[in-house]
Amino acid sequence: MEEHATDHPADHGPLADIAFDAQGLIPAIAQQHDTGEVLMLAWMSREAVAETLSTGRVCYFSRSRGSLWRKGEASGQVQHLIELRIDCDSDALLLLVDQHGVACHTGRRSCFFRAVRDGALVEIAAPLVAPEALYRAR
Amino acid sequence: MEEHATDHPADHGPLADIAFDAQGLIPAIAQQHDTGEVLMLAWMSREAVAETLSTGRVCYFSRSRGSLWRKGEASGQVQHLIELRIDCDSDALLLLVDQHGVACHTGRRSCFFRAVRDGALVEIAAPLVAPEALYRAR
Repeated sequence: MEEHATDHPADHGPLADIAFDAQGLIPAIAQQHDTGEVLMLAWMSREAVAETLSTGRVCYFSRSRGSLWRKGEASGQVQHLIELRIDCDSDALLLLVDQHGVACHTGRRSCFFRAVRDGALVEIAAPLVAPEALYRAR
Repeated sequence: MEEHATDHPADHGPLADIAFDAQGLIPAIAQQHDTGEVLMLAWMSREAVAETLSTGRVCYFSRSRGSLWRKGEASGQVQHLIELRIDCDSDALLLLVDQHGVACHTGRRSCFFRAVRDGALVEIAAPLVAPEALYRAR
């Protein structure tokens, strides 16, 4: 595993043996805890895991911005952590969450709103909120 | 996207714009279609996606073996594809499947059988099948 200049709670806690990839990241699935709906897949760094466990608000690592991404910091659509699970190989996380509003930046509840049906990719869910409304100056 | 010597259906079909990573892979979540249980996260290559869509039996790409991995080929625990979905950024897949038996090589239904509870990592599901029984010579 990668070396860190600073010490994080996740270095010693129950998730000390997480198998982060060469970029120091692990894929995390967010699932709505009560309905079972898979909302999104994003990435977490060791720091993101530690912050999520300590605050109870889901924090990812944005690969495009190269920094921590506190889900909902721009849109208000926060995710509260209900439970964090880890898989058999310790290289994937499942976050049971309570999603406030919508998970997708397009205004849809789930990011997985396109499906292959009859050989074509079709939209199976409409936006619940206009994206402009989500990212209006808050 | 990477170049391929051979031509695959997924090059032209509904999934032509899948954003495979630098290794030519995309993470795929397998979810039991009726119960909503998240079973596992694995990786697919373009060829794995094409085969899965054409056969209806889920085929991943094994990063450890470096080859196609027809789920259940060794254990008999196959996954039938019900629907393939893709996320907003086209860089993650959600497979709604019908899992025969158990998804995890440890004999558990789901690979996500450990959870952080009260600051400790605990097992929340027991094996339904002994691993030795799964991988006995068939």
